[in-house]
Amino acid sequence: MLILKVGGGKAINWDYIAADLASLAKKEKLIIVHGGKEKRDEIAKQLGKPTRYVISPSGFQGVYTDKSALEVLTMVYAGLINKQIVAKLLQYGIKAVGLSGVDGKLCQGFRKQFLISMEKGVKKVISDTYTGKVEKINTHLLKTLLKENYVPVITQPAVSYEGGLMNTDNDRTIAVLAKAMHVKKIIILFAAGGFLRNPSDKRTLVEKISKQKLANYFQYAHDGMKKKLLGAIEAVDAGVKVIYWGDGRLKHPVYSVLNGKGTLIS
Amino acid sequence: MLILKVGGGKAINWDYIAADLASLAKKEKLIIVHGGKEKRDEIAKQLGKPTRYVISPSGFQGVYTDKSALEVLTMVYAGLINKQIVAKLLQYGIKAVGLSGVDGKLCQGFRKQFLISMEKGVKKVISDTYTGKVEKINTHLLKTLLKENYVPVITQPAVSYEGGLMNTDNDRTIAVLAKAMHVKKIIILFAAGGFLRNPSDKRTLVEKISKQKLANYFQYAHDGMKKKLLGAIEAVDAGVKVIYWGDGRLKHPVYSVLNGKGTLIS
Repeated sequence: MLILKVGGGKAINWDYIAADLASLAKKEKLIIVHGGKEKRDEIAKQLGKPTRYVISPSGFQGVYTDKSALEVLTMVYAGLINKQIVAKLLQYGIKAVGLSGVDGKLCQGFRKQFLISMEKGVKKVISDTYTGKVEKINTHLLKTLLKENYVPVITQPAVSYEGGLMNTDNDRTIAVLAKAMHVKKIIILFAAGGFLRNPSDKRTLVEKISKQKLANYFQYAHDGMKKKLLGAIEAVDAGVKVIYWGDGRLKHPVYSVLNGKGTLIS
Repeated sequence: MLILKVGGGKAINWDYIAADLASLAKKEKLIIVHGGKEKRDEIAKQLGKPTRYVISPSGFQGVYTDKSALEVLTMVYAGLINKQIVAKLLQYGIKAVGLSGVDGKLCQGFRKQFLISMEKGVKKVISDTYTGKVEKINTHLLKTLLKENYVPVITQPAVSYEGGLMNTDNDRTIAVLAKAMHVKKIIILFAAGGFLRNPSDKRTLVEKISKQKLANYFQYAHDGMKKKLLGAIEAVDAGVKVIYWGDGRLKHPVYSVLNGKGTLIS
């Protein structure tokens, strides 16, 4: 079994991804997880409530998720993007079924009581936050679908122990998902060629990272890449043997990364 | 097995509905279908693209669904409203799983090449329309979930034979769904006490309609109620024995309608 996580950049080419998966899905069980960040930011702006990014004291980027930001997230991720991806995969013969973390309590966890955000060097407490951390996976629901050869296509939001919707981090959720489903192999596609020491210079691509040495790369990680590193560390701790990071914009994105193009963590 | 269809009015009380379903779902398999019209119209307006209603030459109200209206529909129905309803049902112990008609090609049909709209007595052809009619149900997906005691919570959009998303009519889709799943009983809850001869006078409630005489009521039907009548006629043709129309705003909406409050079609 394989988890494929695809980022939410608009440059991601789902035709290319689906074309690869059409053959791959015949050989291997697949779970797909996707984002929707760029479209979310676009819709949030159109609605007059632009996304506010926050930085935690330990330097991780997050999203300030009040009630209206949670609504936009739910609309764009679980609604628009999820259904567009499912339709695309179906066109390529993949029996895709879209699910959010809410459905059947697929991804459940604790809602944070507050966030701490660093603003110009000052710590600020944000209390009206609908963010959290996934801890439990409804493996029964996934197995029910996988057994019948459906391909689950999972996205935000997740559900809290109290039963409300919440924003969580996909990169960290897939580590929990991998552990729960005993997955040993993860592919992550985004709008870059892999892990770059300098994000504006593709010659700084790191082709291989030893899974024991992931933490050494925080010094080179920018923005969302820090969360990806953290997710990778958690995935390795959860028993994942190999993680591929590659470019979701190019032809044959899945087979390219499996054949060594991108960053291999093993 | 029972189909419960709930309208998209904001006055619908999902706590009341969920409280009833919590006990009902233990006795009977349930399929829920819901709308999201009022929230859709609200978001469409906020995005500067207000919903345009159109009237067909035969007097049925529809929605002008161009690409951007389809996106709003998908965001609000399959995203926001579906996940809020699923979360609510889960809080009441119902193992709800949200699905759009796209997922696993759950609700598939033909996309209309054009719509004819009457505007001030003049026929107008609308060609950029993403609307259609559902004809096929993926019963395998529903049975897979129902067998494991999940409660499918279904909404728009559906998927066309060409593989694109499309807007369809929930009231007519449930007739196709009932036929495919051999359902004999449908409950429809909306923001009214049942079928009213005069929508502004609740004393004009029709308590019973013979299923052979449904067509006689078109003369009293306004706006969305015409589609509900058409859907009821199609459901009866599909083998449905009894349809309950009742108020989704009041306490015990499901048990009230089953106990004779509202309009009974049999």
